[in-house]
Amino acid sequence: MTEAHSHTRLRVIRAGIDTYQQPVVYMHRDCAVCRSEGFAALTRVQMHVGSRQVIATLNVVTGDHLALDEVALSEAAWLAVTPDDGAFATFQHPEPAASAGALRAKVFGARLDDADCLALMRDTAANRLSDIELAAFVTACAGERLDPGETLSLTRAMVAIGQTLDWGGDPVLDKHCVGGLPGNRTTPIVVAIVAALGHRIPKTSSRAITSPAGTADTMEVMTPVALDLAAMRRVVEREGGCLVWGGKVRLSPADDVLIRVERPLDFDSDGQLVASVLSKKVAAGSSHVLIDMPVGPTAKVRSEAAAQSLSDRLMMTGTAMGLRLSVLRTDGLQPVGVGIGPALEARDVLSVLRGEAEAPLDLRERALAVAAALLERAPGTPPGQGLALATHTLESGRALAKFYAICEAQGGFTEPGVAEQRADVPALQSGWVQAIDNRRLAKLAKLAGAPTSANAGVTFRWRIGDPIVAGAPLFQVHAQSVGELKYALDYAAAHPDIVTISEAR
Amino acid sequence: MTEAHSHTRLRVIRAGIDTYQQPVVYMHRDCAVCRSEGFAALTRVQMHVGSRQVIATLNVVTGDHLALDEVALSEAAWLAVTPDDGAFATFQHPEPAASAGALRAKVFGARLDDADCLALMRDTAANRLSDIELAAFVTACAGERLDPGETLSLTRAMVAIGQTLDWGGDPVLDKHCVGGLPGNRTTPIVVAIVAALGHRIPKTSSRAITSPAGTADTMEVMTPVALDLAAMRRVVEREGGCLVWGGKVRLSPADDVLIRVERPLDFDSDGQLVASVLSKKVAAGSSHVLIDMPVGPTAKVRSEAAAQSLSDRLMMTGTAMGLRLSVLRTDGLQPVGVGIGPALEARDVLSVLRGEAEAPLDLRERALAVAAALLERAPGTPPGQGLALATHTLESGRALAKFYAICEAQGGFTEPGVAEQRADVPALQSGWVQAIDNRRLAKLAKLAGAPTSANAGVTFRWRIGDPIVAGAPLFQVHAQSVGELKYALDYAAAHPDIVTISEAR
Repeated sequence: MTEAHSHTRLRVIRAGIDTYQQPVVYMHRDCAVCRSEGFAALTRVQMHVGSRQVIATLNVVTGDHLALDEVALSEAAWLAVTPDDGAFATFQHPEPAASAGALRAKVFGARLDDADCLALMRDTAANRLSDIELAAFVTACAGERLDPGETLSLTRAMVAIGQTLDWGGDPVLDKHCVGGLPGNRTTPIVVAIVAALGHRIPKTSSRAITSPAGTADTMEVMTPVALDLAAMRRVVEREGGCLVWGGKVRLSPADDVLIRVERPLDFDSDGQLVASVLSKKVAAGSSHVLIDMPVGPTAKVRSEAAAQSLSDRLMMTGTAMGLRLSVLRTDGLQPVGVGIGPALEARDVLSVLRGEAEAPLDLRERALAVAAALLERAPGTPPGQGLALATHTLESGRALAKFYAICEAQGGFTEPGVAEQRADVPALQSGWVQAIDNRRLAKLAKLAGAPTSANAGVTFRWRIGDPIVAGAPLFQVHAQSVGELKYALDYAAAHPDIVTISEAR
Repeated sequence: MTEAHSHTRLRVIRAGIDTYQQPVVYMHRDCAVCRSEGFAALTRVQMHVGSRQVIATLNVVTGDHLALDEVALSEAAWLAVTPDDGAFATFQHPEPAASAGALRAKVFGARLDDADCLALMRDTAANRLSDIELAAFVTACAGERLDPGETLSLTRAMVAIGQTLDWGGDPVLDKHCVGGLPGNRTTPIVVAIVAALGHRIPKTSSRAITSPAGTADTMEVMTPVALDLAAMRRVVEREGGCLVWGGKVRLSPADDVLIRVERPLDFDSDGQLVASVLSKKVAAGSSHVLIDMPVGPTAKVRSEAAAQSLSDRLMMTGTAMGLRLSVLRTDGLQPVGVGIGPALEARDVLSVLRGEAEAPLDLRERALAVAAALLERAPGTPPGQGLALATHTLESGRALAKFYAICEAQGGFTEPGVAEQRADVPALQSGWVQAIDNRRLAKLAKLAGAPTSANAGVTFRWRIGDPIVAGAPLFQVHAQSVGELKYALDYAAAHPDIVTISEAR
């Protein structure tokens, strides 16, 4: 505060620009603050508005869009300081982050201890580290550069800086899937089965980041999911389980920030993955956790050796954090279910819960396997009885009833909608399905409008090895508007290799 | 190109926002492109305008500042595609950079070969790597993680992707200072001495980045420095030497981009420092190079061991690149000369060249030492005769005459100006100067207006160990306006510890 100068202040206006989670402020090049503080484009500045403050990145305006006595705030900056009408801001150079020394030491090869991790995660969550500093941290931890002790320290630190839920006693069940497969929407079914058996399973899920649907998007076509903590607690107290969006709860605020650079960099790091997953489970108050780990050449975990190494790290860290953990390896080769897109995936989920004849068998089997493993991890299920118990709960209709009850408690159940526009794309030749390009299949669903248009997406029933005849529907595109339908069909026509069909089996 | 969709194009407008070298495009959240391509804030997008293209970062506008059919371009994006009036842009997801594999391999511990470095530097210069990818690269090379072979590969790659100047034969002399000291403005004096002796020394310098003045800023108060390559060549052909701004010449375009993340991260890396410095020297067509390396506890090179290691790396790589290199270690403890700020430093330079009685002795001695070492590295100077030769050239007035001649060739010599406002700040106590806070001294000069106001800055004559009496002028602040003067004086009053005076010697 000693370096602040109150006589160089600027009037705050809202820029209406979304820069994701990174706060940005816009000042005119010739304003008094830029001149006197020596600020230039991309300088990190500390802004004070009333009693609130935020560290933001400066973009310099050279045109006449902005007055010399104004500062415009991006959405993230605006929300951080929530200024009153006509508020003024003052600026200074930020002090170096307390964790800058720990970051530098790690970059140069030192080990992180508990205090280092706590400082780093505290500064990360408070946005005191810039994106390039976060990228440096992620890089310095990549591969095997976080040892088991550091992984544990990082997990503890992520938990320590956020809020932790307390459900008033064990057991509290949870599940997590490492690296999603298209359509692998087992969570609603698993929660319904487990809660129907009287277990407590307060499940939070994410929205789509780069995929056509996240579990929260899928649930949202059937029931409200943007519940705050108090509402979530009421649902769980009444029904034993919930299926809500985790974004409102912020269980691991540092991890939410790290994702901003981890996603584009995509550097695999067992240590950071373990800390990210397990910190959220501990913060959610979970005691018994099942990790679904699809393994396959195009999945996140690509080999048995990688699966073993990651499993060991999860088990070691989870046990040290007081979790009872199981890892279930599953087949990671192909999409799961029929629908890709929020409503279409919701239809698959309901179809399995309702025991319909056309319910996708692979989704049903995966959900039962995950539920069985989770039940056997929890107290009260005799070993080897999990699958029978889960299957009976599903087939008896108790899981469906529990699912409806959870939706009612969250605000009411709605049947998923149907897209206005639908068109089949036929197979161009006869033969056997040899390969499926999951990435392009997902892109096709996004071009059709998913997840923004909840009813949009793609239905796709084929699996590798299936025989197909020319002219048969290869997949169906679902869209809300003629324009979006055409857009997706253009893409499908330009990419006949989304599904590879070979004449030889 | 196969994934471009020409029916989703946006009209290009100029945002008038400076985001430094990082191209940014602004689209409305609800525009057709964001909807159909699934773009969100911070997505990297490839934009085509006519035959030009650039990869930019997306910021999403949520207000009504931007129409749904418009895209606004930051200055860097605008300059990259230089659109015609009413031009339209199309967008697609960029293909992964060709060097993404090399970057990932280096992060996970592999060695970089020539081809890897070439791909990385090509993508860096073409802005195909994002800031966080650049930060990952810098982190993966930090400390000792670039071995000598990789350092050489990186140096070669930086040279290969830029233009290389050819002066039609050796020798071509050059000098570089590793990590500047405040006021250490030896370059104009060295160039004048060396060129006066008939050597060719085509010197390019930088403007201030975080300091109150760069050599280019200092020269600019005396002569034009923003010369293009053809103009620079005419000056060197006529006078043997020049003193121009390097920014127009772009000798190491990849390094210019890397600086964007290296500066804020400030991770020391001998390998990257060597590649950065030597690639520019090779590209400038230099054959004989003197490296001035200040060593001191607050300098960039802090210990004799660090100096030895960096010297070895410079010599090894320079020799392999065909340079004849010398490293001169100098005292890195205190500021040099009297003035801090463009015109004030220019006065020191002229004072030394003119042999005035009050010329700062430390600046004179450093310039002579650097000139001597450079002369002895070049052909034609007998060993041990460099200092006598340099001193004679300075004292005889030949260096001053050459300096004037170079300025004339660059567009004419102008005497440095004097600031409108000046005020002494007196010492508050008697005693001995015990410590000087170089960082705050530089900040004081910037608050007074340097380098934007060329005449602004600080004059400071004291050195550690000097006796001083209370009330004597500790330093003088120079500013162009009363407001800036007051601003600097306020800062000085709030920080009486810029100079520490102790009662005990």
